[in-house]
Amino acid sequence: MKIGFIGLGIMGSAMATNLVKAGYDLTVWNRSGNACRPLAEIGATVAATPRAAAETCDIVISMMADPAAVKAVRDGVDGIISGMSAGKGFIDMSTVDAETSLNSARMTQEKGARYLEAPVAGSRKPAEDAALIIMTAGDRHLYDEALPILGKMGKKILYLGDTGSAARMKLANNLVMAGMLTALCEGLALTAKSGLDVAQLLEVVDSGAMSNPMFRLKGPLITADGEIPAAFPLKHMQKDLRLALRLAEEVGQPLFAAATVNELFKSALAADLGNSDFAAVSRIVHRD
Amino acid sequence: MKIGFIGLGIMGSAMATNLVKAGYDLTVWNRSGNACRPLAEIGATVAATPRAAAETCDIVISMMADPAAVKAVRDGVDGIISGMSAGKGFIDMSTVDAETSLNSARMTQEKGARYLEAPVAGSRKPAEDAALIIMTAGDRHLYDEALPILGKMGKKILYLGDTGSAARMKLANNLVMAGMLTALCEGLALTAKSGLDVAQLLEVVDSGAMSNPMFRLKGPLITADGEIPAAFPLKHMQKDLRLALRLAEEVGQPLFAAATVNELFKSALAADLGNSDFAAVSRIVHRD
Amino acid sequence: MKIGFIGLGIMGSAMATNLVKAGYDLTVWNRSGNACRPLAEIGATVAATPRAAAETCDIVISMMADPAAVKAVRDGVDGIISGMSAGKGFIDMSTVDAETSLNSARMTQEKGARYLEAPVAGSRKPAEDAALIIMTAGDRHLYDEALPILGKMGKKILYLGDTGSAARMKLANNLVMAGMLTALCEGLALTAKSGLDVAQLLEVVDSGAMSNPMFRLKGPLITADGEIPAAFPLKHMQKDLRLALRLAEEVGQPLFAAATVNELFKSALAADLGNSDFAAVSRIVHRD
Amino acid sequence: MKIGFIGLGIMGSAMATNLVKAGYDLTVWNRSGNACRPLAEIGATVAATPRAAAETCDIVISMMADPAAVKAVRDGVDGIISGMSAGKGFIDMSTVDAETSLNSARMTQEKGARYLEAPVAGSRKPAEDAALIIMTAGDRHLYDEALPILGKMGKKILYLGDTGSAARMKLANNLVMAGMLTALCEGLALTAKSGLDVAQLLEVVDSGAMSNPMFRLKGPLITADGEIPAAFPLKHMQKDLRLALRLAEEVGQPLFAAATVNELFKSALAADLGNSDFAAVSRIVHRD
Repeated sequence: MKIGFIGLGIMGSAMATNLVKAGYDLTVWNRSGNACRPLAEIGATVAATPRAAAETCDIVISMMADPAAVKAVRDGVDGIISGMSAGKGFIDMSTVDAETSLNSARMTQEKGARYLEAPVAGSRKPAEDAALIIMTAGDRHLYDEALPILGKMGKKILYLGDTGSAARMKLANNLVMAGMLTALCEGLALTAKSGLDVAQLLEVVDSGAMSNPMFRLKGPLITADGEIPAAFPLKHMQKDLRLALRLAEEVGQPLFAAATVNELFKSALAADLGNSDFAAVSRIVHRD
Repeated sequence: MKIGFIGLGIMGSAMATNLVKAGYDLTVWNRSGNACRPLAEIGATVAATPRAAAETCDIVISMMADPAAVKAVRDGVDGIISGMSAGKGFIDMSTVDAETSLNSARMTQEKGARYLEAPVAGSRKPAEDAALIIMTAGDRHLYDEALPILGKMGKKILYLGDTGSAARMKLANNLVMAGMLTALCEGLALTAKSGLDVAQLLEVVDSGAMSNPMFRLKGPLITADGEIPAAFPLKHMQKDLRLALRLAEEVGQPLFAAATVNELFKSALAADLGNSDFAAVSRIVHRD
Repeated sequence: MKIGFIGLGIMGSAMATNLVKAGYDLTVWNRSGNACRPLAEIGATVAATPRAAAETCDIVISMMADPAAVKAVRDGVDGIISGMSAGKGFIDMSTVDAETSLNSARMTQEKGARYLEAPVAGSRKPAEDAALIIMTAGDRHLYDEALPILGKMGKKILYLGDTGSAARMKLANNLVMAGMLTALCEGLALTAKSGLDVAQLLEVVDSGAMSNPMFRLKGPLITADGEIPAAFPLKHMQKDLRLALRLAEEVGQPLFAAATVNELFKSALAADLGNSDFAAVSRIVHRD
Repeated sequence: MKIGFIGLGIMGSAMATNLVKAGYDLTVWNRSGNACRPLAEIGATVAATPRAAAETCDIVISMMADPAAVKAVRDGVDGIISGMSAGKGFIDMSTVDAETSLNSARMTQEKGARYLEAPVAGSRKPAEDAALIIMTAGDRHLYDEALPILGKMGKKILYLGDTGSAARMKLANNLVMAGMLTALCEGLALTAKSGLDVAQLLEVVDSGAMSNPMFRLKGPLITADGEIPAAFPLKHMQKDLRLALRLAEEVGQPLFAAATVNELFKSALAADLGNSDFAAVSRIVHRD
């Protein structure tokens, strides 16, 4: 089976590398050609366009930064859809809203092909370690067929049902993440303003039932001075909060805490922290 | 060394039992005598009053439900303070506000004795397993002396400085806990209202960097129907949020998210959920 | 000058009636023909379609419930745009988002005609009394030309600049309204729960610098039992809050209080209060 | 009837002056003697201590800045209570919490005298114009007796019942005020960030049902640059919000919007705006 891989950013490069290492016949494409070189060196073919990759492969995977970037490689005469035909499969692993994903599904199906949305939880390190959590939704047969492939990129793969379900689940997941992180930031700010040792709060929290890798990773970055390098940029988290709150409005679910957390993230954006890690919301919590 | 132990509720019984098993010469007292029997059966002496326990022991430990209960065993002619004298030590492991603890310290010192506040994180199971996290503050010499004793009840013991520091640290810890739990509740409510599978959200969250024992424990209770039996009663968590917000006002720290979380807990109290577990705030989040 | 008037709901009927009484040659259209009768009886002509009204009039005014209703009378073969041509004017007095209004402007201009957005503040009574506040934006010449007409419907007419400005100003206005009303509801709920007389709070508030007609009108409805008949339906206010918060996200403005107020309105929607007056948010504030 | 007047700040001076002008035999006292001079010049007697004023007058009125200032003139050997005896009356017009007022009542009654709490709504101008709103609670006979006196200082006098009721009503009143003002600030911030004219929002709001003197007064101060001189200091408003939220916790009333507004006021305090007018919360709303 031939696999196309479109989008070789931090995440995509690591994921594509794991597929080549697993022995798959991979054809890659990236907007900037430079990113293709390391993949070519370990045996991947480089396609001229996303369409070319789709035409020559059985399954095309895309891993783009946002909905606009997905549209850029999906649509148009050189886009993935132009290269789709009956029997092929398109798996979008980018984090996009349900509407973008539903459009991808419709366009793919109009070509007689199959579509699977497959956003991931996890950042650079889990991508390199093939330890991503992959949430999938859409064509069940394509899921079954792609499972071994996905298994080379993630440690946990869930099938959630109709197209859009994985996009929505990802929003719920990130809403929990933003809320948890903000809770830690507020606890740390209170500790610091009370003249207590923030490192001790981290230790106490980590010693009990709340202990989790995210706090262990972000806690010391929050309590240290200086910028927090972006593992997951704050502006992306704010976008996910916005989308989660819109979904909540659609389904009639009040979310008092998340709405407040969103305003904190908006304050961070307004303070030019959008390109820092989402943990930089701590700078807003602690500003006052 | 003789140790007195005042307050044999769920927590206190387990902690006192661990001390007896460790070979300490223990004298116990409880408002209702029934709770003393199991301790007596394994070798503890039963005192007639808290004062009697204090008079005959080197160190008295108390483990009460709230500040009012601490005052009830501390003050008055039969209280712990009446039995204190130079060289003795009083360790209050109850969760109380800094003011109550500062009063305990002052009263103890007026008797020439030493005081240590030592609130714990952890509920029934960690108490039974001697796996509590114990935050201490106050007399450093008493801390050094009591460390082996505390080590029989907890797996992690921190010394945080002046009296009041441990009480405040505990508030910060619980503020993080309430925020984390509320974030999970909102994520689950959004998932459910969106027609997705809440168990799958729990699985996704548990597969990544947010994975923590509290979510594993509380998640299934939240998503199941019915009352959530109190490991940590909601009314106590709301009290801690209230005290944390008062501390924040004193030290000039805005806490937008925690203030909103507190209103959700107040709503839960108003809906008669005060005696349920604090995870029952999910019933309010999901009500609408 | 011949004027077309499309949309004869509660507001539109009153406004059209004022135009006829002022001596204008009016042609009306409404989806349900019944609403045309009272206007016909006082001298208005009834058009067969919105397009017909546009074809035979110099200026067409529309007053619809929401963006979808505007599109229904604007677009398509029988729509207002189909009847537009050079020299004519289209004034949409409905409350719509800036995007809908910008589309109306573009479509109108493509026909060589001129467009003015003119949403109003005020409900049934001010409409009947020609006492509306009319916020306009778009074609300045059309504004100058239409000023005498608008003056028969409103007591205050403002020109705010480019198309979209009036739509956005209306959102800011309604955001203030929702926040004010919620503040009153919370004050009343606190008063009631404290065992004080809510009528006395209304009296105190009305005696000082906060005194305003909205509180005088809504206060007694809030403190009385029973449903609050919709002068301005709650679901419309929630929609305006949603649009205001989206605008705030676009322009980078955190709005902590409005975001919380929006969740209260969402809670009211979830409790089936969408068709009650927006003052029914008091039922949610006071529920707990 | 002889009246004592303790506390000649901005408010007290204006109120005492009105009493002298109305022909009352007034004895005044103020911590700093300077403030007594203008009153002496128009005929008031100056007492050596609050106690002296109480001993020589039938009714003593106090008008202090906060609970601590009330205690300073009430307690101790030179305090008002020391001068109280059967038949006399003590009217505290300061804004204090219910607890302070209940203590004043108890202490007064122990001397056989009568107590009335009488906090006011209104700032300097209404004080000068004898146009205050006076909320009273406590001894009904003292109220009846004092009504003519109060009528020389206020335009509206309400009797609300048992001691504490007026203190609580004042908190509810100020909670509404803070919420209203914050709603205006958020609307203005959204307007400004959207590139619209803030003066036009003020005009629109003032043209309709929301029109109120507070917005007319504060609106232009908010939209102008520079500090906002304190008619009602922000730190006092934050204190009132804090007390209102505590009352809400006692009576079991969630107040989501007020809790968020309180955090905005806390942010303003943290940004050193405590001595500015409470409208300076706008600087925080608009900061981001």
